This record gives sequence, structure tokens and C-alpha cells, in this order.
Amino acid sequence: MQVSFAPAEIVDIAQPREIRGSTTELIRGVSALGLAEPGDLAFLGSSKYKSDVKDSRASVVLLPLDYSGAPRENQLFLLVEKPSVVLSRICSRIEQLLWPRPLPGIHPTACVAPTARIAASATIGPLCVVEDGVTIGEGTHLQAQVFVGRNAQIGTGCWVMPGVVIETDCILQNRVRLHPGVVIGADGFGYEWGAGRHDKVPQIGNVVLQDDVEIGANSNVDRARFSRTLIGEGTKIDNLVQIGHNVIIGKHCLLCAQVGISGSTTLEDYVVLGGQAATAGHITIGKGVKVGGQAGINHDVAPGTFVNGTPAIPYMLERRIAVLQHRLPTLFKRVDALEEQLKKSSS
Amino acid sequence: MQVSFAPAEIVDIAQPREIRGSTTELIRGVSALGLAEPGDLAFLGSSKYKSDVKDSRASVVLLPLDYSGAPRENQLFLLVEKPSVVLSRICSRIEQLLWPRPLPGIHPTACVAPTARIAASATIGPLCVVEDGVTIGEGTHLQAQVFVGRNAQIGTGCWVMPGVVIETDCILQNRVRLHPGVVIGADGFGYEWGAGRHDKVPQIGNVVLQDDVEIGANSNVDRARFSRTLIGEGTKIDNLVQIGHNVIIGKHCLLCAQVGISGSTTLEDYVVLGGQAATAGHITIGKGVKVGGQAGINHDVAPGTFVNGTPAIPYMLERRIAVLQHRLPTLFKRVDALEEQLKKSSS
Amino acid sequence: MQVSFAPAEIVDIAQPREIRGSTTELIRGVSALGLAEPGDLAFLGSSKYKSDVKDSRASVVLLPLDYSGAPRENQLFLLVEKPSVVLSRICSRIEQLLWPRPLPGIHPTACVAPTARIAASATIGPLCVVEDGVTIGEGTHLQAQVFVGRNAQIGTGCWVMPGVVIETDCILQNRVRLHPGVVIGADGFGYEWGAGRHDKVPQIGNVVLQDDVEIGANSNVDRARFSRTLIGEGTKIDNLVQIGHNVIIGKHCLLCAQVGISGSTTLEDYVVLGGQAATAGHITIGKGVKVGGQAGINHDVAPGTFVNGTPAIPYMLERRIAVLQHRLPTLFKRVDALEEQLKKSSS
Repeated sequence: MQVSFAPAEIVDIAQPREIRGSTTELIRGVSALGLAEPGDLAFLGSSKYKSDVKDSRASVVLLPLDYSGAPRENQLFLLVEKPSVVLSRICSRIEQLLWPRPLPGIHPTACVAPTARIAASATIGPLCVVEDGVTIGEGTHLQAQVFVGRNAQIGTGCWVMPGVVIETDCILQNRVRLHPGVVIGADGFGYEWGAGRHDKVPQIGNVVLQDDVEIGANSNVDRARFSRTLIGEGTKIDNLVQIGHNVIIGKHCLLCAQVGISGSTTLEDYVVLGGQAATAGHITIGKGVKVGGQAGINHDVAPGTFVNGTPAIPYMLERRIAVLQHRLPTLFKRVDALEEQLKKSSS
Repeated sequence: MQVSFAPAEIVDIAQPREIRGSTTELIRGVSALGLAEPGDLAFLGSSKYKSDVKDSRASVVLLPLDYSGAPRENQLFLLVEKPSVVLSRICSRIEQLLWPRPLPGIHPTACVAPTARIAASATIGPLCVVEDGVTIGEGTHLQAQVFVGRNAQIGTGCWVMPGVVIETDCILQNRVRLHPGVVIGADGFGYEWGAGRHDKVPQIGNVVLQDDVEIGANSNVDRARFSRTLIGEGTKIDNLVQIGHNVIIGKHCLLCAQVGISGSTTLEDYVVLGGQAATAGHITIGKGVKVGGQAGINHDVAPGTFVNGTPAIPYMLERRIAVLQHRLPTLFKRVDALEEQLKKSSS
Repeated sequence: MQVSFAPAEIVDIAQPREIRGSTTELIRGVSALGLAEPGDLAFLGSSKYKSDVKDSRASVVLLPLDYSGAPRENQLFLLVEKPSVVLSRICSRIEQLLWPRPLPGIHPTACVAPTARIAASATIGPLCVVEDGVTIGEGTHLQAQVFVGRNAQIGTGCWVMPGVVIETDCILQNRVRLHPGVVIGADGFGYEWGAGRHDKVPQIGNVVLQDDVEIGANSNVDRARFSRTLIGEGTKIDNLVQIGHNVIIGKHCLLCAQVGISGSTTLEDYVVLGGQAATAGHITIGKGVKVGGQAGINHDVAPGTFVNGTPAIPYMLERRIAVLQHRLPTLFKRVDALEEQLKKSSS
């Protein structure tokens, strides 16, 4: 992080209810209380770290309103309603400095087809390829080395990072953020068994990413066999995730890293999947379902439940069985003993 | 999908045995019977959806020869021997419109070494890099931003999509299809433990992909330590799959998404692995073996078997044990009761 | 492999203690004893393959000092202290021929910001993008189509392969090797639940890769929420691995393919994780811990232990429970029999 803020700027963003002490340090970083050095900003996000405050060397500390201690020399305490919310506000300001809004326009090294329609405030970075019939909305930023295939449509305010591939006919609505290496619209995995070989089933549908979808590095969303693969508004997907063809994902879901969703499965709204969890194809995961990491789901899951294990079962049952499995060695011995006892008593 | 067909064109491709009704709609999409709207083509692929036909709003419906109902107004029924086969034929035609054959030639922004031999009918798209000594066969298409390293050989009719990396000395035979982000020929993961550190073992072999291999987005096939890593004819690999160094995969295998094959393992022909399944290194998976999703294989598997679980065991046994595990809470209670009973009877 | 060596060159590299026989073949490849053909070099790395030597058709064979057999006609035996070490030395020589040191300089198609500082002996290959404020050290090679974001710092002797993305502010120390498609510094996966939607938590930290780190194809290391995500000196990471934000990995660890490390977890030095293993967030894996393939770790692990399974437990216990699980069908029958017997005896 190569930015710096005067303490007065931090005060201006934080709008504290109370100020204690002062510092002459420029703020150049954010750190945990225990690791902070002069020049760092730290915050008390959870009362369990309260005792770390008095030893912290941070130059500025965000604290809840009920914190009673005093700062050390050359240290500034800012008392605010929600330190973590104020921290996010400061980080957003830093983020804008790290990734300043690029200037609109098409970089001279980009290959943009004459029939593509690029909004005036959009930025097409170096070495991008934009094919025929593509539409790119206001304020959208293709950062560098991005590929956008024929007739794809990208809305306003999207950020498409280096090396992303958006294939033919796919649709990004507004404020979609795609991290490096994401592939949208590769063929679904569909074959029919022919004469001793797998014949390809054409994949002629597309992918639709609704408003505010964010997808992590090197993740894939496959195009539909026909019709579309859909990721609902506000859904956030982590890195190295695989979304199969014709999958429908609802609004505001969270999919952690390395999750796999097989073809034609539906996730309703607000579903959360832990890392490396996977589902079979052609099933429905109900609204608000939570799925443990590495779980494997092979049937429909009722709304509002929490499942775990492979194959996934209700979380509490899975936990109980896991504990009993650890007692299997004892159980075998107990059954041995019972048999022995009965043999004796019957002889 | 930005294409449209007159009904007469559909009839021409479908070659129906019988025609019922007629429509004036242009066909602009393919959809499931229950979701179809006017302008869509739908099909009855399985008799369990038979009841959906009479309510379907599709303009054209492909039906099996024994279907007896009549179309609604402005609806065309085409009776054919195998609706799903006819559908694939129609989709192939649509596919050709979505991805028209590119014009042969080398895009002016591509960096092609003077010693590379590019066939006259091949297409090298924008911003590709083709290094010294590379051979590229007739009709092969490097779409955009592809990298082909020194002395790599690519056969005829291949389709290499945006962002693919094919490293030095690797070989693609004919009609190989690589989806965006695929990496062929990165180093295998080999180190020797030296003086407190891992010393790299050079990886000087290559990768050979035989005819009609297809590999999904962001998957990797590592180059061999020496000799070669081999993917057999007609094998299809899904997205985010990892193939280690010196792996030998037979003909016409299917590897679903996120599978991992460790180094020096052999898959014989017609093996099928479910999503996220993985194998240890230096083992052999016999001809026609099927492996369940998320399974973990740590020893040789005999030809023709179906295995599941981690560590993988025969499928029926694994299913039976899974059921018994769910009855562990009851089993513990039953053993408690037996012990109680014996204690009483012996006192 | 398109290289060839005269037998005399091999002798020169191998520095054998004893030479038996001779060959006129040029050496064009390396192969296993049983698969080798004339023109190949083979080696006896383990005494269990001893019987393969006398039937091997390899032109040159590296053998341990105590090997007593004689070569066939036109075959050269070289007796050396450690055949595998000599083989690595020969492979390193071959590797230099496959990937010759590139000429220093900036390719005319690369987009390099005027404020970037590129060392005189560094190579910036075709179609790379290097943004403002970047530093690139002596002898470092950006191979092709690489992206390096604002203010990133890359040390000396690094090799960054095609399609790699290094985001803003990230740091590579010296001799770091990144395989194709690696993404360093994408945003960590952090959201706060707001009014019915996930609000993004800015990720303003960076990633630091210390000396001699190597990372496999299409793997990701996320940037920290604040502060840094750290990969320690000499750690080797395989393909398709996910490292979450604020993870700290020690020195000389090995992470096999498709491993996932959740946010804020610490791996101490010399940890080894098998393929597809994963950890929860905010935990510590002690020094020298070994983790089995596909294991799932949800709590701290004490140094020096070997764990397996999901959730991971000590390896020997996990193996024992796995065996007992296979005997569950029998156990249920035994308990049935006990109940039957007691019922009889009490009636």
C-alpha cells in the first residue's frame, strides 16, 4: 500500500463522537492491534481484543463509544459507533487511491471490432479484444488483455480484470466485477455416447450475470446447452469455482472457493456453500440453505436447512455421527465383550 | 442467441416422418417444453414430460413417432424417430452461426516467429504469440491471446480458445478443442528434499493430446518429468481439472469438473470420473471403471468396477456402509441396552 | 524434446566412476528402463527395477556403483554414486536447451508505463502490460501476455510465465517462478451482511512471495484485507491451489494440487498438504504437519503430526476407523444376533 493520510483526513472520514490524544504520524497502513507499528491505523472490532489496545503501537485507533482507556504519547483514539463500519469507509477511500478510475477511451493496442458499441465513458484497456456486435455500457472498465466474444452485452459500471474471457452472446448486467482469469461462457460438458465414442452435444445457450455479481479469479460459468445459465443479483462467487451449464443461482448467494455446481441444478436465494462443497446435477437447493465445506449434495435440500458431509445430511446429525465414528474402536470392543459374556453364560 | 430460422428451414433439417399444424413464427431459440414461448423450438426427449406437450407455447415441437396429440393454433408438430438426435442436428446448425468459420490468415497484431510453419488455411487470431519452430496444421484456429511455445506441434482442425497456453514441445494431434484458460505443459510438481529445502527436479518431457481430445476452461495438463504425459483419443475433460506429470489417460474417458489425477497414474480406456474425484499417484484405474463424485482412490482399481467414497471402495458396499452410518446413533443405544440387560441378568 | 547429445557430452556431465561398453547413438530422450528405445538415456533409481536393466534397449544407462552386469552391443553403462542425482544434472542441461535464456530488453509489442523501472538484464516479452510505478529486477523474465499492476515490485531472477496476472502493490522477492495463469493479488472474499445483501469489504492489503517460491498453473493467492498475505521462502505450490486473504505460509512448505487454504490461517514451516486438502479459516497448522489428500482441517493441528480425513484426525486413528467402517455390516449382524439370543434366553 503506497498511500498516506494525514490524521486530520482520517478524522474527517471517521466523524468520531469523541477524540482522545493526537499524533503527528502520517497513516500509511492498516493493521491488527497487536501487530501495528507507528504509521498504522488499527481498530477494536471485537471486545475479546480489548486488552490489546493499551499495548498497541498504532498511531490511530478506532474504538467503540464505551472504551475508557487513554492513548499513549503521539497516539490518537477515535471513538465511533461502529469501528468496523468506519474502517470499511477508510479502506474504501484507500481502495480508490490504489485503483484510481481510469480515463475513458480505447487503448491504441486494443482490437475493437468496428461494429462494437462502446459507451463514451467506458475504458477499454491495453491488448483487449472486443469482437463484432458487442455492447459495452457507461463507466465499464475492461482492464487489460480481456476477450469479449461476438454479440456479448456488458452493462454499466462493470469492472473486468486482466485475462478475463467473456464468450459469444453472454450478458453481464450492471456493476458486475470479474477477477483475473474468469471464464464466462465456455461450453457446458455435454456428450452423447455414440459408436464407441462421446459425440459432442452443441452448447448454444448463453450466460447471464445479473447486477452486482462478483466472481473470483480463475472461476468458470459454463454456457447453457440451450436457454441460459443464470447467476442472480448480488451473488458473490469466490476463486476456482465451477458452475455447470443451465445452472440457475438465485440472489445474494455466497459460494466459497473451489465449489462445484453440476449442470441444471438450481440454488434458490441466499444459499451459502462452504469451500470445496459440490452438488450433483438436476437438483434444487432451497432458499437460505447452508452447506458445510467439502460437503457433497446428491439430492434436493429443503429451504433453511444446514447440511454437511458426503453425502450431505442435516448438520447436527452429521456432527453426531462423526463423534460416534470416533468411538467405533470402543464399540467393537464392547460387542466383543458382550459376545464373550453370552458365550460363557450359555455354556 | 441472435439467430433465427424460418419453420421451413427447421423442417428441412429435421426431415420429419409426419407434420402436424403450422406456424408463422420465426424460430429464435430452443427451450424446455414448460418454459417455451412463441418463437421457441421444444422437444419431447423423455416420455415423463409427455403431459407438458399440450400446454407448451413452443412454436415448433419435435415429437416421437407414437405421439398422438394435435398442435394448438400457430404451432407446428414434427414427428421424428429420435427427437434428441434431431435437436442436436438443429443445435449444430445454430452453433455454426454463433461461431462462424474464421477467415484464414495471421492477424496483424499476432506475434509469430519467422521459423513457425503455419498452414495456409489456419487462422491465428489477434494478440497470439507463436514462438520459434512451431507447426500449425490446416484449418486450425488460435482464437485470440493464445500462447504457443517453441517447437510445439498442433495438428489440423484444432480450436484453441482465448487465453490458452501451450508450452514448449507439446503436441496436439487433430481436432483438439481447448477452452479458455487451459494450460498444457506447465512443469510437473517434482522436488527432491535437499539441505533443508526442496530442490526442483527438471521437467523436460512434454504433453501429447491425441485426436478429438476436448479440455474445459482453466484445466491443466502438466508436462512429464521426462517422456510424456498422454491424453488418449476422444477423451473429454471438463473445467478446472488437474492432470499431473507422466499420467497416461486412455481413449474415450470422461473426467468431470475439478477432478485431480496425481503423477504417473494410468487410466485405461473408457474410464469415467465424477466431479472432484481424485487419485493417488502411480496407480492404475482399469478399463471402463466408474468413479463417484468426490471419491478418493488410493490403490489400483480392477476393470469394469464402480467405486465410491474416500478411500474408494465398491459402490454397493459404500452405499450400504453410508446407510449403516446413519444408524450408528441407534446402534450405540442398542449396545447400551444389551449391556444393561446383561448386567441385570448377571446380578 | 528436440535436443540431442553425443555420448561423450553425457559422460562429461555424469563424471562416472566407471564406464562399460560404448554407443554410437545420439541421445535424444530420457525414458524408463522398460520403455526406452535406442537413442534414450535410462537410469536405475531403485533396486526393485534391477532386473529391467538387462532387457533395456536404452543407449545409455546410469547405474549405481555396485551394479555388476555388462551392457549389450552399442550400449553404454555409466556407473555413478547416485544415478538420480546425475539424471537431474543431465535434465537441467536439457532444460537450458528447451528454455534458453531470453535476450534482455522490452519487446516492441509490450505496453510498459514510462514510470516503471525495468533492470537492464530483465526481459519483458511480447504483449505484456507493466503499469505505473512497477519495479522489475535484474535477470527477471516476463515471458508473454503477463500483467503487472501499479507499483508491484518484482525482484531478481524471477520467471513469470504466459498469462500470469500480478495485481497492484504485490511483491515478488527473488527467483520466484509463476506458471501460466497464476493470479497474485485478486481480492480476498470478504463481505458484510447489510440490508438484505452482501456489502463488499475493501481488500487493500497485498501479497508477498518470498525468495524461491514456485506456484503452479492457474493457482491464486488473494491480497489481504489489509496488511499482507505471505508465502514463505522456498515454499512450492502446485496447480489450481487457492490461498485466501491474510494467510501466512511458512518456509519450505509443499501444497499439492487443488488445495484450498481459507482466510487468515497460518501454516508454519515445512507443512505438507496432499491434493485437494483444505483448511478452515483462522487456524494454525503447526511446523512439519503432514495432511492427507482430500482431508478437511477445522481446528489447529499440533506440530509434527500427520492428520487425515474430514474432519481431519490423527492418521493412525483415521486408518483404524476406516477399517472398522468396512466391518459395520458385520457389526450390525452381530448386534442383531446378540439381541435375538438375549430375547430367547430371557423368554
